Amino acid sequence: MIREAVIVGAGLGSRLGDITKDRPKGFLELDGKYIVEMSVRKLIEHGIERIVIGTGYCSEWYEELAEKYPAIVPVHNENYAETGSMGTLEVCAPHVQGDILLLESDLVYDSIALFALLNDPHRNVVLGSGTTQSGDEVYISVDDRQEVLQISKQLETVGSSYAELVGISKLSHETLITMCSFARSHHQDMPKMEYETALVGAQQAGQHLFVRKIEYLAWREIDDASHLSIAKEKILPMIKESESLRGVQREVLLNPGPATTTDSVKYAQVCTDICPREEEFGQMMRWICDELTDFVGSRDAYETVLFAGSGTLADEVMVSSCVPQDGRLLVINNGSYGQRLAKIASVYKLDFEVFESSTYEALDMKALHKRLIEGKFTHLAAVYHETTTGLMNPIPEIGKMCHELGIVTIIDTVSAFSAISIDMERDCIDFMASTSNKCIQGMAGACFVFCNRRELEKLKNEPMRNYYMNLYDQYQYFSRTLQTRFTPPVQVLNALRQAIIETKQETIEKRYERYTQCWKVLVAAVEELGLKMLVEKNNQSHLITAILEPTDTSYSFDEFHDRARDLGFTIYPGKLGNINTFRIANIGDIQPHEMERFVVFMKEYFKPLLKG
Amino acid sequence: MIREAVIVGAGLGSRLGDITKDRPKGFLELDGKYIVEMSVRKLIEHGIERIVIGTGYCSEWYEELAEKYPAIVPVHNENYAETGSMGTLEVCAPHVQGDILLLESDLVYDSIALFALLNDPHRNVVLGSGTTQSGDEVYISVDDRQEVLQISKQLETVGSSYAELVGISKLSHETLITMCSFARSHHQDMPKMEYETALVGAQQAGQHLFVRKIEYLAWREIDDASHLSIAKEKILPMIKESESLRGVQREVLLNPGPATTTDSVKYAQVCTDICPREEEFGQMMRWICDELTDFVGSRDAYETVLFAGSGTLADEVMVSSCVPQDGRLLVINNGSYGQRLAKIASVYKLDFEVFESSTYEALDMKALHKRLIEGKFTHLAAVYHETTTGLMNPIPEIGKMCHELGIVTIIDTVSAFSAISIDMERDCIDFMASTSNKCIQGMAGACFVFCNRRELEKLKNEPMRNYYMNLYDQYQYFSRTLQTRFTPPVQVLNALRQAIIETKQETIEKRYERYTQCWKVLVAAVEELGLKMLVEKNNQSHLITAILEPTDTSYSFDEFHDRARDLGFTIYPGKLGNINTFRIANIGDIQPHEMERFVVFMKEYFKPLLKG
Repeated sequence: MIREAVIVGAGLGSRLGDITKDRPKGFLELDGKYIVEMSVRKLIEHGIERIVIGTGYCSEWYEELAEKYPAIVPVHNENYAETGSMGTLEVCAPHVQGDILLLESDLVYDSIALFALLNDPHRNVVLGSGTTQSGDEVYISVDDRQEVLQISKQLETVGSSYAELVGISKLSHETLITMCSFARSHHQDMPKMEYETALVGAQQAGQHLFVRKIEYLAWREIDDASHLSIAKEKILPMIKESESLRGVQREVLLNPGPATTTDSVKYAQVCTDICPREEEFGQMMRWICDELTDFVGSRDAYETVLFAGSGTLADEVMVSSCVPQDGRLLVINNGSYGQRLAKIASVYKLDFEVFESSTYEALDMKALHKRLIEGKFTHLAAVYHETTTGLMNPIPEIGKMCHELGIVTIIDTVSAFSAISIDMERDCIDFMASTSNKCIQGMAGACFVFCNRRELEKLKNEPMRNYYMNLYDQYQYFSRTLQTRFTPPVQVLNALRQAIIETKQETIEKRYERYTQCWKVLVAAVEELGLKMLVEKNNQSHLITAILEPTDTSYSFDEFHDRARDLGFTIYPGKLGNINTFRIANIGDIQPHEMERFVVFMKEYFKPLLKG
Repeated sequence: MIREAVIVGAGLGSRLGDITKDRPKGFLELDGKYIVEMSVRKLIEHGIERIVIGTGYCSEWYEELAEKYPAIVPVHNENYAETGSMGTLEVCAPHVQGDILLLESDLVYDSIALFALLNDPHRNVVLGSGTTQSGDEVYISVDDRQEVLQISKQLETVGSSYAELVGISKLSHETLITMCSFARSHHQDMPKMEYETALVGAQQAGQHLFVRKIEYLAWREIDDASHLSIAKEKILPMIKESESLRGVQREVLLNPGPATTTDSVKYAQVCTDICPREEEFGQMMRWICDELTDFVGSRDAYETVLFAGSGTLADEVMVSSCVPQDGRLLVINNGSYGQRLAKIASVYKLDFEVFESSTYEALDMKALHKRLIEGKFTHLAAVYHETTTGLMNPIPEIGKMCHELGIVTIIDTVSAFSAISIDMERDCIDFMASTSNKCIQGMAGACFVFCNRRELEKLKNEPMRNYYMNLYDQYQYFSRTLQTRFTPPVQVLNALRQAIIETKQETIEKRYERYTQCWKVLVAAVEELGLKMLVEKNNQSHLITAILEPTDTSYSFDEFHDRARDLGFTIYPGKLGNINTFRIANIGDIQPHEMERFVVFMKEYFKPLLKG
C-alpha cells in the first residue's frame, strides 16, 4: 500500500514567460483551479496520506496550499536555482518513510493513471503514454521484460522509444534511496540532474524499474503556452469525461445514517485482496486505531478497539464488557438508543437501573446527581446524541459529575463522534462507541470502542459475558498480534482509512460547521412553513432534526418520501411512542446547496397542504 | 437497481455476407470470442441477474450459449424475418419484471458504458457517442434538457445530431410497456419497426428519455466487413486497455479465507449510497437470503438469516440462540473451530459436554453414537470442514444419526458452504453458519445462519442470551419489516449479491471441481517433494491442505511466506498444539494455472532444502 507521495515543484517554468512570473508552474490555472491542487486532490482521493512537496521558486504558494491541505508537507530546496528536479527530490527523500508516488508538479492527467500505477504488480513503475507530439517529449526505451533502458529527451540516446514519460512513477523506498546515492555521487559532474537520470542510474544499479504504458492516456505536461492551450481545449475535457464516467450516482441521504459518502471512500473498497493477518494489514488497522484515537484523546491514555458489526454491536460490547461483576449501572433513557442500552443491560442480567427522562426535553441534572449518589452506582451509560430525536445530552457535564463521584462513564457516541468535538479526558468519558458509517463518513460494517486504557486494563480478569464482543480480549489480542481475533471487514476498513484521511483533511470542527450550515437551511425552512420541531432548538444537535408531522392535513409520509426520493433525497420517519415525526439528518458528505435544493422541494410539498 | 437485460439478437446481418451465413451477428468472433458472449459477461459482471435474449435467425446458437450461462433466457421471435428489432423486443417484454438494460447483439464496447448508464440519475437513458464515421450512423437529436427528440439514420429527419446511437439503453419498465403499446398500434403501417422508432414513440407518449453522451467511448456496431476489421484493429485494443486500467492488482490468497475475489465482486461495492431501510434494499436482502437458501434447501422449509460480522459471529449466533434453556449440547472438538464452539458454549454457561477427537484422523462414529445416547443430548454442534487442518467431518452421516435420535444439529459450515454440495434436508442439518468471504467468494463483513424453519420457530419464547446475536429476533424482525434490526453492511451485501450471481453462473458443483483441480496440482507437488500432509488424503476436503513443516532443514516459514508474497501468493501458517504445519487453501477465485505457478515456486523453494 502506497501512503506517501512526493511532488517535485521547485522549478521556474521559464518557458511559460509571464504566466509563471509570479508563481511556480504548479499554480497555472485550468478551469479556475491550480493544476497542482487538482493533482493533490487526486492523490488524497487515492489514499495518499502525506504529500511531500519539494518547493523552490515562489515557495510561499506551496506554503499557503499546505494550510488548506494538512496532508501537504512543503520542503524547501534552498538551492533550487542550482539543482535540477533530482536535487529537490534529494531534499524531500528524508521526509518519507515508505514506497512513494513521485510526480512532477506541472501535470494534468486522468486520475485512472494513479489507480493503474497503484495496482501495477511491480513495485517500481514509470508511467508511459503513447505519442503526444507535444514537442517536449521525454522518451523511454525498454528491454523485453518492459524494464527501463533509457529515459531521455534525445531520441538518439534512447534508441527506439517505447513510450513517452508522463512524470508519474511508483517507487519503492529502496529505489528512492538508490536514486539519491546515484545523485550524490554525481553532484560534481551533474549538478543539475533531473530525476529521470537518477531513475536510469538506479535501474543500472540493480533496481528493477518497469514501464506501465497507457497508450490512450489523457494527460499533458505544461511547459509552454501552447501546452496550456491544448490542455484547456482538448485534454481537460477528455480527463473530465473519463473521470465522470467512473462517478457513482449521487443519492443524498437525509436519513440518520448510514450517511452519504464520497466516491473516493466508495472506491477505496476496490483494493487488492489481502489476508488480514498479514502484517501490512495489521499496520493499517494500527493506523486506523491510532488516528481514530487522535480525534478524541492522547494515544498514551486512550485506545481504540475495532470490531466488525454495526454501532449497536459496539454498544453491546461496552455494556457487556465494561461493567464488572460487582458493578452497578445506571442507564439514562431519553430515547430509543438509551432504551437499547437498558435492554442490553437487562439481557445480560446486570445489576442496573434506568434513569428515565423526557425524550425531547433537557435532562434534570440535579435529579441525576441525587440518583447517582443514592443508588451507589459505579457505572453510568448514556447516549451523547439521540438519533431518534436529535436531542443532545450534556455529556461533558454528566461526565464531570460522574468522575467526581468516581463513576465510570460509558457513552454511545454513534451519531456524535466525528461531528461533535469530543475530548475524552476533558469530557470525562471512559468508554465510547461509534461506527464507520455515520459522521466519520465511511461504509457500514465496522464499529469501534474508544477506551480509557486505565479503565480497560481493569477489565482483564472479568469473566466473559459473550465471546465475539468481549472488549478486553479483542484489545489484548490485537495489541499482541496486530491481528483481530476474527476476520475483520477488510474492504470496509480500507474505506474507513480513506474516510479518516478525508476527515483529517476537512477537520472535525469544519465538518461540524458544514453540518450546522445545512441544519440552518433546514430549520429556516421548517420555521417558514410553521412546522414544529420535537426538540427545542437549544437542545438540538445540528445533526438530526425531528419534525412533528402535521395532523390536520392530507400529509402522507410515504408520498413525501417517494417524491423526495425521485429527486435524489432519502428521508426517514421517526416514531416515538405516539408522537409522529419525520427526521431530517444532515450528516455525511452533503453540502448546504443540496439542503437548499431539498428545502425548495419541502416547501413545494408542504405549502399547499398547510394552507388548508 | 437494474437486475435484468434484454438483448435483441434476432436479425440476419445480411450485410456481413458469408461471415454470418451460418450464425447470428452476435456470434462474430473477435479475439476468438463471440461478441455477444463478451457482452453477456460484461452484463453479468455489472450485476445483471437475468439476460433475456430475443432470438430469430440461427437461434440454436443462443440456445447453446444459454447452456453455458444460466443467466440467459432465450426467447424466440418466430416472426423474426417479418419484424424489426421492435418485434423481437415485444416478444421479450413479457419475460422481464423490472427496469432493464436494452442492448443490440452486434456491439463491442468498453464496459465503462454500462457503469455510466447504471449510474445515470435518469431512469430512461439512451447511450450516445461522439462521431464514429462508421458509415452506418444512427443520429440522435435532443432538446435543451437532453431529452430525445429524434433518432434516425436520416440526418435530415434528426435535424441537428447531438450524438450517435450506440445501441445500449437503460429503460424503466413503464417505458418498455409504452414502447410495446406504440409498436402494437403500428403493426399495420410499420411491420418492420426498429426499437429506436418505438423509443421516440414512447418519448412522444410522455416518457422522459434522456441521452447520455460519451464523446470518447470506444465502441463499434458491426454491420459489415469494414466494421469488423476496424473493431479488430482499432477499437478492441482501446477497449482492452481501458478495461485493464480499472483492473485490481491480483493477489492469489492461499490462506484459508478471506478468499480471492473477482474484480466484479470488488466493484459491486461501488454503488449508490442507500438507506438500508428502503424497501429496495430490503428486497435485495430478501433476494440474497432466498438465493442463499436455494443453494442448500427449499425456501418452504429453510430460511437464511443475515448478520453483520465474521463467521465466528454466526457460530456464536447459533450456539447462543439455538440451544434452549433445557437443552443439552454435545460439541465435537477435533480442531480449533470445534474448540471455539465449545468455548462459546462455556461462556454462556450452557449445559454442554465436549466430544474430543483427533485433529487429523476420522471420527469414531460408534463412540459418538454411544455418547449421544448416554448423555441424553438434545443438540449437537460440529464443524463441517476444519479450517485449521482441512479435515472433513462426515456431517451427513452424523446428521442422520442425530436426527434418528431426535437431536438438533448445529453445524459450522464457514469454509464448507458453497464448495461442498450441501442439502440440509438430506444431510439432516438444522442450523448452519457461514460467511460472505470464503467459498461464496464475496467480501468479509457479513455472515449468515441457515435455519430449519420448524426448529427456528421453536426458539420463539426462549430468553435472549445476548442482544445483537439473537437469531430468532433477527429472523422475525426481518420477516416482518424487510429490514435488519441493526445497520447491515450495505456495500458488503452488494458484493455478496454479485458473488451469488457469479456462484450461480459457475454452480457449486463446478466450483468444487475447480477447487479440486487446484488441490490435485498442489498434492502432486507435495508428494513429489516428499512432504507429509497432516490429514490422510481420504479425509481431506480438497479445500485446505495442512502440510507438515520439515524439521531437519533450514526451512523458515517466514522466508517461504515472504518469497511467495513477492510472487503474488499469500500463504498461512498453521499451528496445532505442538504440530507445526503450513496451510495451503485453494478456495476463492483462483485457477489451476495459478496453482501450477505456485507449485513451481514451492518446488524451487523446497528442493534445495530437502536434499540436505
